[in-house]
Amino acid sequence: MGYFSGIGTISYEGKDSKNPFAFKHYNPEEVVGGKTMEEHLRFSVAYWHSLTGDGADPFGRGTIEREWDRFSGMDLAKARVEAAFELFEKLNVPYFSFHDRDIAPEGETLRETNKNLDQITAMMKEYMKGSKVKLLWNTANLFKHPRFVHGAATSCNADVFAYSAAQVKKGLEIAKELGAENYVFWGGREGYETLLNTDLELELDNMARFLRMAVDYAKEIGYTGQFLIEPKPKEPTKHQYDYDVASATAFLQKYDLDGHFKFNIEANHATLAGHTFQHELRWARINGMLGSVDANQGDDLLGWDTDEFPTDLYETTLAMYEILKNDGLGTGGLNFDAKLRRPSFELEDLLYAHIAGMDSFAKGLKVAHRLIEDGVFEEVLDHRYRSFKEGIGRDIVSGKADFHTLETYIQDKEEIRNQSGRQEQLKAVLNQYLLES
Amino acid sequence: MGYFSGIGTISYEGKDSKNPFAFKHYNPEEVVGGKTMEEHLRFSVAYWHSLTGDGADPFGRGTIEREWDRFSGMDLAKARVEAAFELFEKLNVPYFSFHDRDIAPEGETLRETNKNLDQITAMMKEYMKGSKVKLLWNTANLFKHPRFVHGAATSCNADVFAYSAAQVKKGLEIAKELGAENYVFWGGREGYETLLNTDLELELDNMARFLRMAVDYAKEIGYTGQFLIEPKPKEPTKHQYDYDVASATAFLQKYDLDGHFKFNIEANHATLAGHTFQHELRWARINGMLGSVDANQGDDLLGWDTDEFPTDLYETTLAMYEILKNDGLGTGGLNFDAKLRRPSFELEDLLYAHIAGMDSFAKGLKVAHRLIEDGVFEEVLDHRYRSFKEGIGRDIVSGKADFHTLETYIQDKEEIRNQSGRQEQLKAVLNQYLLES
Amino acid sequence: MGYFSGIGTISYEGKDSKNPFAFKHYNPEEVVGGKTMEEHLRFSVAYWHSLTGDGADPFGRGTIEREWDRFSGMDLAKARVEAAFELFEKLNVPYFSFHDRDIAPEGETLRETNKNLDQITAMMKEYMKGSKVKLLWNTANLFKHPRFVHGAATSCNADVFAYSAAQVKKGLEIAKELGAENYVFWGGREGYETLLNTDLELELDNMARFLRMAVDYAKEIGYTGQFLIEPKPKEPTKHQYDYDVASATAFLQKYDLDGHFKFNIEANHATLAGHTFQHELRWARINGMLGSVDANQGDDLLGWDTDEFPTDLYETTLAMYEILKNDGLGTGGLNFDAKLRRPSFELEDLLYAHIAGMDSFAKGLKVAHRLIEDGVFEEVLDHRYRSFKEGIGRDIVSGKADFHTLETYIQDKEEIRNQSGRQEQLKAVLNQYLLES
Amino acid sequence: MGYFSGIGTISYEGKDSKNPFAFKHYNPEEVVGGKTMEEHLRFSVAYWHSLTGDGADPFGRGTIEREWDRFSGMDLAKARVEAAFELFEKLNVPYFSFHDRDIAPEGETLRETNKNLDQITAMMKEYMKGSKVKLLWNTANLFKHPRFVHGAATSCNADVFAYSAAQVKKGLEIAKELGAENYVFWGGREGYETLLNTDLELELDNMARFLRMAVDYAKEIGYTGQFLIEPKPKEPTKHQYDYDVASATAFLQKYDLDGHFKFNIEANHATLAGHTFQHELRWARINGMLGSVDANQGDDLLGWDTDEFPTDLYETTLAMYEILKNDGLGTGGLNFDAKLRRPSFELEDLLYAHIAGMDSFAKGLKVAHRLIEDGVFEEVLDHRYRSFKEGIGRDIVSGKADFHTLETYIQDKEEIRNQSGRQEQLKAVLNQYLLES
Repeated sequence: MGYFSGIGTISYEGKDSKNPFAFKHYNPEEVVGGKTMEEHLRFSVAYWHSLTGDGADPFGRGTIEREWDRFSGMDLAKARVEAAFELFEKLNVPYFSFHDRDIAPEGETLRETNKNLDQITAMMKEYMKGSKVKLLWNTANLFKHPRFVHGAATSCNADVFAYSAAQVKKGLEIAKELGAENYVFWGGREGYETLLNTDLELELDNMARFLRMAVDYAKEIGYTGQFLIEPKPKEPTKHQYDYDVASATAFLQKYDLDGHFKFNIEANHATLAGHTFQHELRWARINGMLGSVDANQGDDLLGWDTDEFPTDLYETTLAMYEILKNDGLGTGGLNFDAKLRRPSFELEDLLYAHIAGMDSFAKGLKVAHRLIEDGVFEEVLDHRYRSFKEGIGRDIVSGKADFHTLETYIQDKEEIRNQSGRQEQLKAVLNQYLLES
Repeated sequence: MGYFSGIGTISYEGKDSKNPFAFKHYNPEEVVGGKTMEEHLRFSVAYWHSLTGDGADPFGRGTIEREWDRFSGMDLAKARVEAAFELFEKLNVPYFSFHDRDIAPEGETLRETNKNLDQITAMMKEYMKGSKVKLLWNTANLFKHPRFVHGAATSCNADVFAYSAAQVKKGLEIAKELGAENYVFWGGREGYETLLNTDLELELDNMARFLRMAVDYAKEIGYTGQFLIEPKPKEPTKHQYDYDVASATAFLQKYDLDGHFKFNIEANHATLAGHTFQHELRWARINGMLGSVDANQGDDLLGWDTDEFPTDLYETTLAMYEILKNDGLGTGGLNFDAKLRRPSFELEDLLYAHIAGMDSFAKGLKVAHRLIEDGVFEEVLDHRYRSFKEGIGRDIVSGKADFHTLETYIQDKEEIRNQSGRQEQLKAVLNQYLLES
Repeated sequence: MGYFSGIGTISYEGKDSKNPFAFKHYNPEEVVGGKTMEEHLRFSVAYWHSLTGDGADPFGRGTIEREWDRFSGMDLAKARVEAAFELFEKLNVPYFSFHDRDIAPEGETLRETNKNLDQITAMMKEYMKGSKVKLLWNTANLFKHPRFVHGAATSCNADVFAYSAAQVKKGLEIAKELGAENYVFWGGREGYETLLNTDLELELDNMARFLRMAVDYAKEIGYTGQFLIEPKPKEPTKHQYDYDVASATAFLQKYDLDGHFKFNIEANHATLAGHTFQHELRWARINGMLGSVDANQGDDLLGWDTDEFPTDLYETTLAMYEILKNDGLGTGGLNFDAKLRRPSFELEDLLYAHIAGMDSFAKGLKVAHRLIEDGVFEEVLDHRYRSFKEGIGRDIVSGKADFHTLETYIQDKEEIRNQSGRQEQLKAVLNQYLLES
Repeated sequence: MGYFSGIGTISYEGKDSKNPFAFKHYNPEEVVGGKTMEEHLRFSVAYWHSLTGDGADPFGRGTIEREWDRFSGMDLAKARVEAAFELFEKLNVPYFSFHDRDIAPEGETLRETNKNLDQITAMMKEYMKGSKVKLLWNTANLFKHPRFVHGAATSCNADVFAYSAAQVKKGLEIAKELGAENYVFWGGREGYETLLNTDLELELDNMARFLRMAVDYAKEIGYTGQFLIEPKPKEPTKHQYDYDVASATAFLQKYDLDGHFKFNIEANHATLAGHTFQHELRWARINGMLGSVDANQGDDLLGWDTDEFPTDLYETTLAMYEILKNDGLGTGGLNFDAKLRRPSFELEDLLYAHIAGMDSFAKGLKVAHRLIEDGVFEEVLDHRYRSFKEGIGRDIVSGKADFHTLETYIQDKEEIRNQSGRQEQLKAVLNQYLLES
């Protein structure tokens, strides 16, 4: 207890504050469009980055040593729970998220591992009683242990499939026990290193079998949280099966699983797949599958998942635009799947980084809200697509037109007039809203 | 006539020939696994690159001037037909492919344009009578004219949708008239430049409406060729709707169009989307949607579609491996959607390049055939996935297992044993087959 | 005359204006840190994009038709001069820039071409007398004509080297005649498509010979403008010789040319080379070689030079930061080497886009100025590197230390203490300055 | 002892062998162009990947457990030496390479660490007496320990500079003691995470000071091995100072260090910087700076350093082409800076992988040798650049021409004739040599 006691208090005093932990744009109680900012943003701390992560990278050992790291085994696990709830309170966030292996160490067998989990789950449940913080989602770590070297649900080894299934079974039970609002599937090893040794068809069939069993088991135990798939194109594997929102949708549709899942969309995964963050959000939104967000940012000049805390206001604004147009995230939230840069190893950095991220999304919320209130882009679209609201355009949309009627309509026209898309002007408008909202 | 008369004859004399146009690996009549190489490979010349292209790039004018370019208008169109059939004969290919606008110029109205098309179509039909060459596929150029600046089927302008529909209507009629074995849809402008001005949902709905009309019209006129979607992630637009095979599948499934389409997979489009060529082929194959191939190659260190003639023997071998496992391409073929490098502007280069491409795929065919005959990768897979053929693995695959039985099976096991994936060894084996087949 | 007469007037009324052409952040006469914004920013219009460009891309014809395009040949060239000076006045910019072939068409021989150039140069000189606009720089287009297919100064064809030399000779004469403050070298074709046919050593030697001749000729005619190299890594060639600032520096140093050149740094070229814009500016700055800026922006998810108008306020702020730390650009300026998106084909877009770009850099200037005034990053650096101002650090910097003294100093120390790099906090600070300046 | 005793023997029996460890193309004693293959190829095993590496990645623990891993501390270090020399003998390689921290653990102080090093160095020296294997190079690990979080020679902390200097001092002493033919500098942390907190100028000055001290110290102790810089653009840092061969050359030239260093060029680092492997080799070669090679390969569709064993025969052929044109690597060699894929965790994989790599380079050597013997590319170049051997071209090269003479020569010419670059044909020729050599 008291891991964060040496650190000043967060305040919402706004721009004049000298407090380094003062928010400039976020005040959880401020009302924007009928809801408080806290209700809109549903921020969540990621246990693995903020409690467990040590700053290691492929070329270097961890740089982060927290006070709780003096413990080990279950004692460390318990110390982390204490530290976690202190941090949640310090940051005043309403949610957190974890992988099973973040919160408790493995035992010799899965049965023993699950006993460890039970202890920590019980402890968390107690802590949650005394806190406003809720569990946004939990998930299973099916990638770190060497047994998952060839995948989990898509391993070539049936024992690994079985192990993974049992692990998710336990995860769903914990989700139910702790009231997790969602349960996430991130298939970090569900993919391949080379097609030369891969039975792609069997692996995809097995992944579908696995997810079907999870759906069935949740129903059996009465767990009603939202299931979320988190797409990522690559890393650690050469090619991951849930490459992006569209390809994961194709998979879910093929196996008739699409009714049971939405997406947890991560900014940095979007860009690794060649898409903007907004693209993935929009694509999910118009298909009714926008579930939750892993709020971070990547570096487009680097080819790996940098998982930086989100500070780019263009990204946060356009993300919040999609979320507002989606009427919010439902049971989802903005989960900071973001890690401190390796050189930001001090405890204060954990606060600076979360405040930077929360403030950036808060500003994004305000800008997006004003953009929508003013109908800026809606007006552009109304005007731009107006030809589909009358005449031949209406016939196309209503299904009245066919190739015959369309040919008759167009074949003797000498000219078709288009209008500018006004992209440069729209970017300037976005800048103005950013600076003035 | 006689455009290629100054150029020596192609021969299939093999490795001792001094003829610069001698194939080393391809002999159309050589039988490989029960079929001739010509039947396996179904090579096709792309009209746009080889008859119409001039070597221009974004920073420079065309470098290619062919003898037929001294004509203009319909005379040029006719001269190109002559040149084309000379080239097909010279190269001894069984197929060709074209966009509508490659073969005839536009008139003042679509009606006039279609008259131009009719003349050239009739001329081609005559030429085809005297030739073995057949039409692999035709398609509509819905991207070059300024009218398509905002898209074709996904334009914000209903007139452009109508125009595009009428253009594809005519395309299907030509396909029928010339016996095209497939009809291709490549949506070069079906995408967006910025989401700020894009109604993504309406545009995707309209694309589906458009494809549905095409399906209906083909049925109406009795055109029975295979419909093919050609995915590409970007270029010319910032983001194209048929990003890759998986995302185009998601689209087709959503709109219940998947029974009507297969894919035309282009190597360079695959890599632009972050996939290997083999990945896209495999993904389509196991979903029964591998229709045809645009045989080229990109430069992975460059970020645009370089459309190079395919010479990488690893790529051709692994492509032919997928094609052989697919029992061939059916009505599809290997279409050289490949252009001469801008500095390769001489007429001879056209032959060198096609011969390089054909020879590379012929070699790939032989290597892949021997790999399959020897069961090299099949044996690896049999061994690697054997745990799914017995015990708990068989229960998983048969649907007998669930989370309960799997947990019971695994929870007290102390260790799970995996085996090496042997990737380095497999790559060495592939090298041996390449060098020794 | 009167090409822009139908378009409203630009104003500097600030945030309350309803005028679509009103600047929000830029007022040329506003003083920032002792100089007017116009003096700081030295904006320049690029003739090729704004007067000559037609919106074509590799998959589509031009979409832009300006009123002056009804002319052809020298009449078109003259109409463009008229339109250009109207545009400069409309935009109220102090500078412009051009390639030789932007302003006048080629004749049958270089002698004829040069006569065309003479006419237009004389006309421009007249127009410049009646205008405040000056020539920031001119350059030679050594990439568009097919003769440059294998390069210009690095062509395998000595005639092309000669032609290029004569063309630059004329360019330097025009620079002198029009008082160009700089002369730019962009080697769009100076590179290779494949090393298989490239004598890399001879080509680099020839490029050096070429630049040396240019230096000599400028001296001979008394042209004293600054010579600028504009690095770009690729496109149109597979690999360009002036890949980035560092590799162009290596080239200049090797051939003892570095005293004669500075760099014209383009944002989009920086990112294509894998660097941030700021990196290239900084690297040039600390080596005393920051000459001028091509002010645009790219799309990091696309692999080609998109040349967008600059609107990203992070980029403009950090660029202006480097420029202010450089005490300005000297004879250089901010040249909008930026083109309208193909769908932004209306004349108004030309204004919107330039205003968007100018306003974004004006805002960047204000933010950067305040950052420097407040010593934000300077203070960070002072603290961070303080160990080099005393003790062993001072000995290192002064040259007093060697491996012996350093080993003695450190070998028995048990621990070295580092401090956090505070990256997340610095990004939040940057956001605050962006929003509050 | 006996770590590899359960593994079969390597043989050079060629294509008919059933031995899985049989080379197909490499026979160390085979003479190619007057030297044995062993003399040409100078293969080297990388200690860190093959003796120390455990297969961990950013998302997973190590998968590799060797028999020697049952030891710890200095016992482990000694067991690794035993295993290493067994492996070298098994693989029959003439060289190895290591970082200081690969071979011995750190103590509480650098003095203690150096004592550990001394023990292992002495042990290695003994083992080397009984073996043909020599030390290709050693280097200092200045990136793994948290003290290097902000860099080593470019750290903001003078103590870290001192520590690094003392570490390299010891490294040079070991190099001398063990007769290392080269000493390598790889600056994994010499770069920055963000320019916002970086004094770029001071850091580069300090790097130069550091290298100068190393040069001086080597001279002092009479160590005469070649110094090598190993460029890499990024990873682990956002931006590394020795980005590529060209930018590292710029740095060396600026600080007058270029006479003292050559380059150790790694294939995967080249591609991360946007260059082909051949480009980096060629650039170094024509500047007399090609020192040694880290023989691996990357995956161009992934954005990080995959360090795969080299099996791409195009790459090995073109690399060997440059090396043969360089008259070999001098004191350098082909060092397998390559790691087993994480799923290739069995001991046999270590042999398969090295054999795959060695065989691929051996094949590349044979193909490249025949290409040079036949003068394939030389003939192309002679023809292509012949215009620089006579007339105006000779005047350009000899320095006789200037802008005046060149203008006079060219200004009335109506046409310049170029010839095709024949890229497609050259690629086909390369394929033939690959398949037939």
